[in-house]
Amino acid sequence: MPEPFRTRRRVEFADTDMAGIVHFANFFRYMEAAEVEFLRSRGLSVVQVWEGERISFPRVAASCDFIKPVRFEDVVDIAVSVARLGTKSVTYAIEFSKDGEPVARGQVSSVCCRMFDRHIESIPIPDSIRKRIEGPTT
Amino acid sequence: MPEPFRTRRRVEFADTDMAGIVHFANFFRYMEAAEVEFLRSRGLSVVQVWEGERISFPRVAASCDFIKPVRFEDVVDIAVSVARLGTKSVTYAIEFSKDGEPVARGQVSSVCCRMFDRHIESIPIPDSIRKRIEGPTT
Amino acid sequence: MPEPFRTRRRVEFADTDMAGIVHFANFFRYMEAAEVEFLRSRGLSVVQVWEGERISFPRVAASCDFIKPVRFEDVVDIAVSVARLGTKSVTYAIEFSKDGEPVARGQVSSVCCRMFDRHIESIPIPDSIRKRIEGPTT
Amino acid sequence: MPEPFRTRRRVEFADTDMAGIVHFANFFRYMEAAEVEFLRSRGLSVVQVWEGERISFPRVAASCDFIKPVRFEDVVDIAVSVARLGTKSVTYAIEFSKDGEPVARGQVSSVCCRMFDRHIESIPIPDSIRKRIEGPTT
Repeated sequence: MPEPFRTRRRVEFADTDMAGIVHFANFFRYMEAAEVEFLRSRGLSVVQVWEGERISFPRVAASCDFIKPVRFEDVVDIAVSVARLGTKSVTYAIEFSKDGEPVARGQVSSVCCRMFDRHIESIPIPDSIRKRIEGPTT
Repeated sequence: MPEPFRTRRRVEFADTDMAGIVHFANFFRYMEAAEVEFLRSRGLSVVQVWEGERISFPRVAASCDFIKPVRFEDVVDIAVSVARLGTKSVTYAIEFSKDGEPVARGQVSSVCCRMFDRHIESIPIPDSIRKRIEGPTT
Repeated sequence: MPEPFRTRRRVEFADTDMAGIVHFANFFRYMEAAEVEFLRSRGLSVVQVWEGERISFPRVAASCDFIKPVRFEDVVDIAVSVARLGTKSVTYAIEFSKDGEPVARGQVSSVCCRMFDRHIESIPIPDSIRKRIEGPTT
Repeated sequence: MPEPFRTRRRVEFADTDMAGIVHFANFFRYMEAAEVEFLRSRGLSVVQVWEGERISFPRVAASCDFIKPVRFEDVVDIAVSVARLGTKSVTYAIEFSKDGEPVARGQVSSVCCRMFDRHIESIPIPDSIRKRIEGPTT
């Protein structure tokens, strides 16, 4: 199993709510941003042109367990792993931690799609994209 | 099983993303707003003073399956049910539909907590609050 | 001068920040949603097809003065007026009040544009759209 | 006149709207985050304890001119200057640029306040905080 991709971010004021902690919906924004960074590190994007067609990975499912509250100016470490790579879909597992302790744990599943103007069609993940998601074998 | 609480909302421009659909993280905001409306209909709030203490229901878990894309100015019907009412926690099941067809299906679990300034303590849901969540028996 | 268009909304939990009040950036979302409702009441949208072309009104300027804090579950009354209707642009004045007292006052200016894929071109507001923005003369 | 404080950020997917560009309200989140970074670089925060009291800088006005659209994954350079430092208030001028060209230009004014639970009171900016905002004289 390859090492997870690691990134970090600092909680912004606008991410908090009146309970004084990061609003739970923002963890899903954080998860997506981490996924995008992971893809960028592999030369990919969540939206890309592939053989003349616009390919994207809309989400079909997302979940998160919130373990400990996270606050303004906290620095959160984020680890992204590929939990499952199917024919058409990919599931990422995302771990959030602060000072070495887990604070949240999420999953997000995306399906590879051809994007038309008002229409979306799922397709098998093209081989060249699949290889980049899998990452280097050692 | 009691009838779900029903509400609706119209998708705002700021809720969309460059894929032209509601950004998936916003479904979690929608879920929370529907939960708040449900609680309000029962004379409760997500933050309330109870016997002189501030009681709130921070989320411990949230998940959503995204079935169909939802777009700007779409009107979404939202049905909120109490899926499970434990000693300290409550889980809501939330169904989103458009023109009678399901577009998303989520769950959110909250734990009853006493809120202090930098400290949160889980407690059994007070009876008077529990009775309101359960709703009228017929 | 015609009567302003009036709408209202209730502050959601996710709109607040750790100061316990509506985060100031959210007033700009509120302003846009009110503008959209105004346009809808006139049979228009912020994005529309006109003579086969996609016409939109991207913002070129926005400002807001914050007079009083607004909190979770507050109901805010919003009044939208056309402050200036130029050849290519429109400026809305938006007043927020609570219990009859002003809480914020904003302006947003938009320019009529033809929208291409990676390119935007300003154009004079088409007459049929202009007439609807101006509203009924009495 | 001292050099502006400089930072940068990369546009996230959730920051965009269905027009394919950064939603205008998000520039206000960006402005605030840049202000917070500026304050942090001076040993300050937007919320701090000073002589046992909670001091914060709620916004009283914000404005932004949008010059060019900004898109997903664009890297935006942000320059923060103190435009005016009054007895009780501070106004920041914030310039956004991309590849050396201005894309947006904003201002945000904050008032120094003592924060109580449901009450806010403006006060003169304490000297020690003022000195840090002014920055080193050379």
